[in-house]
Amino acid sequence: MKLTLVGAGPGDPELITLKGVKALQQADVVMYDALVHPDLLDYCKPDALKVYVGKRINEYSCTQEEINPLIVHYAQQYGHVVRLKGGDSFIFGRGYEEMEYARQYGIETEVIPGLSSSYSVPALAGIPLTTRGVSESFWVVTGTTKTGHLSNDLHLAAQSTATVVVLMGMHKLAEIMTVFGDSGKADLPVAIIQNGSLTDEQVVTGTVSNIVEQVATAKIGSPAIIVVGEVARLRDLQLADLQQAIANH
Amino acid sequence: MKLTLVGAGPGDPELITLKGVKALQQADVVMYDALVHPDLLDYCKPDALKVYVGKRINEYSCTQEEINPLIVHYAQQYGHVVRLKGGDSFIFGRGYEEMEYARQYGIETEVIPGLSSSYSVPALAGIPLTTRGVSESFWVVTGTTKTGHLSNDLHLAAQSTATVVVLMGMHKLAEIMTVFGDSGKADLPVAIIQNGSLTDEQVVTGTVSNIVEQVATAKIGSPAIIVVGEVARLRDLQLADLQQAIANH
Repeated sequence: MKLTLVGAGPGDPELITLKGVKALQQADVVMYDALVHPDLLDYCKPDALKVYVGKRINEYSCTQEEINPLIVHYAQQYGHVVRLKGGDSFIFGRGYEEMEYARQYGIETEVIPGLSSSYSVPALAGIPLTTRGVSESFWVVTGTTKTGHLSNDLHLAAQSTATVVVLMGMHKLAEIMTVFGDSGKADLPVAIIQNGSLTDEQVVTGTVSNIVEQVATAKIGSPAIIVVGEVARLRDLQLADLQQAIANH
Repeated sequence: MKLTLVGAGPGDPELITLKGVKALQQADVVMYDALVHPDLLDYCKPDALKVYVGKRINEYSCTQEEINPLIVHYAQQYGHVVRLKGGDSFIFGRGYEEMEYARQYGIETEVIPGLSSSYSVPALAGIPLTTRGVSESFWVVTGTTKTGHLSNDLHLAAQSTATVVVLMGMHKLAEIMTVFGDSGKADLPVAIIQNGSLTDEQVVTGTVSNIVEQVATAKIGSPAIIVVGEVARLRDLQLADLQQAIANH
């Protein structure tokens, strides 16, 4: 009995790791999420069981409380379960909870990290989360906490020079921008990326003060990644402008 | 003429992406760093030029100012240059600078993200940077800034509930721990991971107040990853203990 957590990466099926593909090839059961590219299931053995378990806002999906015992059930009945999740399993993926649950039943566990969307989606859109002279750190926050409230960490993040990335935060975009605005950062660049790494990727750029309006005009929705910081400007900037920006910083 | 930045991941050669392997197979020249696993070069065409450019502290290596024109030279002379870096090229990798430099010479550029060591190395050591109820965010900081001073952001990070990850910070470990200690976090768990994802991986765990001593005893040096936060405790904790910790949090 084994559970292998595999991160599928940001969307593009070629952005999974070699090790992730090997695990899929060996799996007896693959339990996959909504954001996983369907082509990845082609790596499975012909007789492998493929189980869709969600999750997407406003759509049918299993709750975490349903998924945990399902993992144990499939491991006990079939042997090797691969849990395939978008991005990385340990970055807001609740993968650790699944692993710990399975261990209670004597199931061996392994983690194969995936490309977290937090930095890989901005990178593919031309935005490095860090760049010498512009940003020395980055902070990744979830917009969807256990309590439903905005994380208090966001207030500290807004005071820092860190590039701030918010995952699963589009439903709180206005509230998040208010936090930055209240820290005197109305003009800080913001980029929003939907369907990152895929052919239908959409990017909207603006500032803390106008991004909510820009998003409404462009009709961008969830899931999307919010990047707040000077680096968000780099997408449109040529080198000469960048050097100017650093000089003025 | 093309430059493709490829992130090689944390060390284990199976933790590169499929897309990264494809780029290596097509490269005319591969310029690779010290932390890249040598097996990855086996994907190259037999006649591909393989150029070692460093960099490692206290060892021969090219400076960034030497690397940038070399990229242009090889692209102009040979065609497709793959720049293979440990981790991800856009996370403290100076990849963006190389890309912008190359663009000035009319060289087409592409980015293929890699697994950043910041979260993948802790994950492989059993430490999720985020876990529901324990940590709602994570902050990745470099210990090696342009000015040589510790980033001011670290003081804000120390006040937050974020899991803090410091890359390239072993030479400032004592100074970093003082920042956390001064924020009243002497008992906060810390984990240090050297050679993450490789067979000679070494992990030391402790707290803000005793980790410097632990590291000295275990003789752990650079390069290593520093993880500060409640999640650092999870490596050794079974589920029952985890639930207790959440209840007491």
